[in-house]
Amino acid sequence: MFPDFDYAARLERARALMTERAIDLLLLSVGADLPYFSGYEAMPLERLTMLVVPRTDQATMVVPRLEAPRVEPRGDAFAIRPWDEAEDPIEIVSSMAGKPSTAAVGEPTWSVFLLGLQEHLHETLFVSATAITRELRMRKEAAEIEWLRAAAEATDRVVARLDRERFTGRTEREISRLVADMTLEEGHDFATFAIVASGPNAASPHHEAADRVIGPGETVVVDFGGRHMGYCSDTTRTFHTGEPVPEVAEAFGVLERSQTAARSAVAPGATAEAVDGAAREVITEAGYGERFVHRTGHGIGLEVHEHPYIVDGNRLALEPGMAFSIEPGIYTPGRWGMRIEDIVVCGSEGVDELNRSPRSLHIVG
Amino acid sequence: MFPDFDYAARLERARALMTERAIDLLLLSVGADLPYFSGYEAMPLERLTMLVVPRTDQATMVVPRLEAPRVEPRGDAFAIRPWDEAEDPIEIVSSMAGKPSTAAVGEPTWSVFLLGLQEHLHETLFVSATAITRELRMRKEAAEIEWLRAAAEATDRVVARLDRERFTGRTEREISRLVADMTLEEGHDFATFAIVASGPNAASPHHEAADRVIGPGETVVVDFGGRHMGYCSDTTRTFHTGEPVPEVAEAFGVLERSQTAARSAVAPGATAEAVDGAAREVITEAGYGERFVHRTGHGIGLEVHEHPYIVDGNRLALEPGMAFSIEPGIYTPGRWGMRIEDIVVCGSEGVDELNRSPRSLHIVG
Repeated sequence: MFPDFDYAARLERARALMTERAIDLLLLSVGADLPYFSGYEAMPLERLTMLVVPRTDQATMVVPRLEAPRVEPRGDAFAIRPWDEAEDPIEIVSSMAGKPSTAAVGEPTWSVFLLGLQEHLHETLFVSATAITRELRMRKEAAEIEWLRAAAEATDRVVARLDRERFTGRTEREISRLVADMTLEEGHDFATFAIVASGPNAASPHHEAADRVIGPGETVVVDFGGRHMGYCSDTTRTFHTGEPVPEVAEAFGVLERSQTAARSAVAPGATAEAVDGAAREVITEAGYGERFVHRTGHGIGLEVHEHPYIVDGNRLALEPGMAFSIEPGIYTPGRWGMRIEDIVVCGSEGVDELNRSPRSLHIVG
Repeated sequence: MFPDFDYAARLERARALMTERAIDLLLLSVGADLPYFSGYEAMPLERLTMLVVPRTDQATMVVPRLEAPRVEPRGDAFAIRPWDEAEDPIEIVSSMAGKPSTAAVGEPTWSVFLLGLQEHLHETLFVSATAITRELRMRKEAAEIEWLRAAAEATDRVVARLDRERFTGRTEREISRLVADMTLEEGHDFATFAIVASGPNAASPHHEAADRVIGPGETVVVDFGGRHMGYCSDTTRTFHTGEPVPEVAEAFGVLERSQTAARSAVAPGATAEAVDGAAREVITEAGYGERFVHRTGHGIGLEVHEHPYIVDGNRLALEPGMAFSIEPGIYTPGRWGMRIEDIVVCGSEGVDELNRSPRSLHIVG
């Protein structure tokens, strides 16, 4: 399910950051923090799973007893403490915690658990674990990049297969289902999402595929991805049923130049906002600035969205090993939308492109 | 996506509970609270979506601008406040909040957002919204029960189709995929999970389907469900490849009696723990008590697990309209496992059984 990384080493790196930032206790639960540090993903349900990481003591995975058999021991990285249905896991974690001055909590941890911990540990200052988890997770190890590359290549194969499909006359939902099936067939454990947004729906960047029948002469934004061995893929290509009218072709030319400009801007030392700016400048100069309504990209790894965010105001300097999307879009409400999205990695010399399927407008039947 | 319920009326009921409990502000985000009160489900991502419900003022949905087109207006139930990429949604929510003495936060809301709100509103006491959301959500409206029934009936049809499949020689993953496909085909918008646990894996209640090839003479626990119009299904049947040996047949007989006893115990006024006790007593008396390692059930609705929990210590008296699972199991580590799960509703006269596929051991090839 998750590769056999050196989880103990990752926990040691977390402890080093905890020392630097005077954090006594790290508490991680649902989402990608837990798999990153333990190779185990908690079920996002009401029974608490929590990796309790004291700065100077062994880590312990507190897990519902009925899920304990799912946890693979990873050497000595952490102990396992199953809890029974009649026990209160918040009490277990609190009593393990000792009296920490500062405790850092994983971003997606449920509020109901944080509130319970705050009640038990009322002298502890609780902060977000972002400063620890982001710092480590956004700098990918070489093996992580290869998992991301494998996932990206699988999506490229899906795009090649979609080029041979007829879109006209089929519903968004039908194409979405097809994309999800192909995502699994081409090498993913899960097909996580498959946005298929046609005609006016394409102007809604996070549109949910619906019963709309795709007509002739429409843009169709297909934004999809999955997970393989824990690592996520996420790519977008814009299809068009038949040849586009000049208005659409022209806008798409601008979008291609924007996306290329952003990819070219990726280099060690370049800021995240500079990459966003490179994409935005091309679109703005062509007069479409108001119609590019979102940031240029997001980090990717064990989560489909994670740090670093490629957004105006983010002055983070890119470093080799950072992986993220480049996905400018142009949206004309009520009429059409278009987006091109690739996953790239900042390499030591410049951009390393994980997606390589053609970025042009994909003409289909 | 979600039915057109009277969301304004539900918000009014929430406000009445807020008054009773002296809560000034209700803050709901990811998970099922948001769809329950607004018919909109937030994407579980890093961009905050939050329904801000003051006790005495109009509710507002704070939503990322690129997702705003997904929000269906529901009459005057709430206003919509899209936020732009360069804005800070925590600031927006905080400034909308005024100076609440007490704010209640939805259980699965991300901790990173709660911590941000606590920093901005440092004189506010934050509590879990459980006392409001649970009270309303666990008492289903008649229309909600019909959506649950439709989803349950779809899973019963899947079970009927599985009875005709060959299990021996196929992998758990293959059967899991088949179950997921059938779940969609029989009338769900999503196939949420499909546990297929064979042989020794069946002793792990939340086993994840893997590459294990199912052999002859094995129990196979199939626990699956999906969502339709927002409402969840969740049922478990135990299959057996060929005729069981006496040990397994005998244990299964005990399990059937246990599950029947629990269903029969459902009635208005009976406590949740009494239903758990009814299931547990049969298994314990037969000498398998140690091997029934989990509670008897969980509520179900817009979430697959929600209140009420059918667990020892829960003295909640059941009321008409409460919907939950009844799912005792017996697990022999390293060898076999078995579970029977139905969704039932507490009716005014007694139990209303939503799942009706045969509960016996399903013999397959």
